[in-house]
Amino acid sequence: MAEDRVMQSLLLDFYGQLLTDKQRETCELYFNEDLSLAEIAEQCGISRQGVWDNVRRAVAALEEIEEKTGLVRRFSETQRSLERLHAETEKLLSLPLEEDVHAIACELAIGLESLLERG
Amino acid sequence: MAEDRVMQSLLLDFYGQLLTDKQRETCELYFNEDLSLAEIAEQCGISRQGVWDNVRRAVAALEEIEEKTGLVRRFSETQRSLERLHAETEKLLSLPLEEDVHAIACELAIGLESLLERG
Repeated sequence: MAEDRVMQSLLLDFYGQLLTDKQRETCELYFNEDLSLAEIAEQCGISRQGVWDNVRRAVAALEEIEEKTGLVRRFSETQRSLERLHAETEKLLSLPLEEDVHAIACELAIGLESLLERG
Repeated sequence: MAEDRVMQSLLLDFYGQLLTDKQRETCELYFNEDLSLAEIAEQCGISRQGVWDNVRRAVAALEEIEEKTGLVRRFSETQRSLERLHAETEKLLSLPLEEDVHAIACELAIGLESLLERG
């Protein structure tokens, strides 16, 4: 379930702008702000069933886009590789290094960190 | 123009599956196979104008998706950073290195190369 939420947040981050405004807003409140259906219903002035329908349709649309393009999967694989490479630079920096080697190892570690953070 | 073609190929690679089958097929022949409008028209049994309309509409759709999601831009920035990091590993490998340092530098260079190739 928690994993589903992470995936749905990722899908929303990647493809949210392809949803209708209403679908995107509802999903942002539900997946990113973690509001309940009742809270969203009150905030948007629609029924809980209406909120749930919006979320369900939006998730179906997001999943269909991912099924067709596979971009979130591609991105997630890259992130995992970057994490492994970053761990290698940590290993490198734990060794006794000449000054010039140390400088490049730092550049690599910082560069990989910033790629991981940027996501 | 050549740059436009590269961009359009990238857009097609990322979002092509979101086009209609006809739009995608026409674009693949035009951008990836580099056929002329006349050749595509003959192959698909439609007019040159029909082919051009398909290409034009498809490019507009692809550009709209990119404008909304920015995923190709995000991907291109990552690729440029990976290229810079890979150049750093080459610099590292040109230095005299202890065996354990050399082994990690190789891992990093290979890992970055495979990320760049995978795209």
